Amino acid sequence: MIGQSNMGGRGYLKDVKPIVDEKISMLVNGRWQIMTEPINFDRPTSGVGLAASFAGAWRLKHEDGQIGLIPCADGGSSLDDWAAGGPLFDHAVLQAKLALRTSQVDGILWHQGENDSMAGRSAVYYGKLSVIVKALREELNLPDVPFIAGGLGTFLSTGRYGQYFTESDAVNSALSKYAETTPNAYFVTAEGLTANADGLHFDAVSLRKFGIRYFEAYHKRTNVWTPLPGESEMVSVVEERELNQAEKRMLLEIGFGRGEMTLSELEEKLTALK
Amino acid sequence: MIGQSNMGGRGYLKDVKPIVDEKISMLVNGRWQIMTEPINFDRPTSGVGLAASFAGAWRLKHEDGQIGLIPCADGGSSLDDWAAGGPLFDHAVLQAKLALRTSQVDGILWHQGENDSMAGRSAVYYGKLSVIVKALREELNLPDVPFIAGGLGTFLSTGRYGQYFTESDAVNSALSKYAETTPNAYFVTAEGLTANADGLHFDAVSLRKFGIRYFEAYHKRTNVWTPLPGESEMVSVVEERELNQAEKRMLLEIGFGRGEMTLSELEEKLTALK
Repeated sequence: MIGQSNMGGRGYLKDVKPIVDEKISMLVNGRWQIMTEPINFDRPTSGVGLAASFAGAWRLKHEDGQIGLIPCADGGSSLDDWAAGGPLFDHAVLQAKLALRTSQVDGILWHQGENDSMAGRSAVYYGKLSVIVKALREELNLPDVPFIAGGLGTFLSTGRYGQYFTESDAVNSALSKYAETTPNAYFVTAEGLTANADGLHFDAVSLRKFGIRYFEAYHKRTNVWTPLPGESEMVSVVEERELNQAEKRMLLEIGFGRGEMTLSELEEKLTALK
Repeated sequence: MIGQSNMGGRGYLKDVKPIVDEKISMLVNGRWQIMTEPINFDRPTSGVGLAASFAGAWRLKHEDGQIGLIPCADGGSSLDDWAAGGPLFDHAVLQAKLALRTSQVDGILWHQGENDSMAGRSAVYYGKLSVIVKALREELNLPDVPFIAGGLGTFLSTGRYGQYFTESDAVNSALSKYAETTPNAYFVTAEGLTANADGLHFDAVSLRKFGIRYFEAYHKRTNVWTPLPGESEMVSVVEERELNQAEKRMLLEIGFGRGEMTLSELEEKLTALK
């Protein structure tokens, strides 16, 4: 998971049902733990992202499979911030290498471009992105690893920062062109997706759908040019998966750990589960 | 910041006033950003830790100085989990090296031992800790960097997991002995500090005080064997520092980014600040 804030995820947790699955992990401090959102805690405003429903959709196709997410996105980062040898790039490579000790890396999820939608930067987006992804694949020794890039929101130009994002269409064209001209790279449209009140960050409901689209691109090795029929229904299937006892216990322990219930309430609920 | 959950911090945010200071940073994705709590988001239950008031106390002595925190603690980790070459150790070294690109590393804050307070592990605590800290100082090429270790809570044996923590006194003795026999290593007592309802994690008010004690050890290069007179008052000074305009704006933007106010409310409040 690399890119800027919309890969980090700024959807409000209260707007969607949690995705809980003990076979979906996230990398924390170099080790795998069961995923909870926010996955990519790059800012105090981090919330729902697109990776949870991506992983949930993957799980629908892999009944006994395990999937892990490696959060490395950083809000407000430009392509130059992601240059090879810079801290964001090196940090992401190090995270991936820690994950590779116990797992294999099967895909790169990218969402970035708002910060390159200005000042003529869109004209060099294709070239800069090509260099970064090539370097990343080389560093990881994974020349064919799929690279999935989502488009920028169509709402950007009318949002709070709309006056700055004058080149978002051009960035979307660059992302599309990159997918069409690069082996194992795919584009995913953001068409129809909506934003928080800032007109900058995808809202949680949209990010759930976006994750389904990312998974379609990953799974079918194809570009996703239009919204998918049934994507909302698939989100529901993922969110409404029945929890097992261990997952229910985990949620109770988290609630207790956050001070949302007393110890005797926790114990009562844990007993009721048995 | 290394160790297990009590270095990560599980204090409830609602129990204390936030510490906000644009000259206190935290490392995220290899880059510095202004500190907000939770700093060390190793679990969904992460909250207040001891590092924020440590940094706040440091700032009282350095009017124009900047301090950064590098969060690497991981809940439930044992000394064996922290062995050199393991993912937690290597992750922490990598984070420190990213920080060293732009900063200097001036101290190591350690809190760990609950998971070694059982099954005879306390008997080998001193030896294992010695090896880990030596390796860490060598990896960072900082042989004299101060190492500050806090004691385990005196409440552990009576808490929810009390039956497991039969050797917490022995671990505290090992930590004390380590501080007394190792150059530039200091012990900080947890005497008088209290816990959340789990009887495992220090509560937020206690962690604020603990951070002041850690700073005393760091600043004076001394062991802190007893609670400090005036530690609560120093917490208040840190928490009640007057915010500048940029800090007030930042808090408003975070609130808006979390969906706690509408765009027009945000704009009204931002205008009122000017």
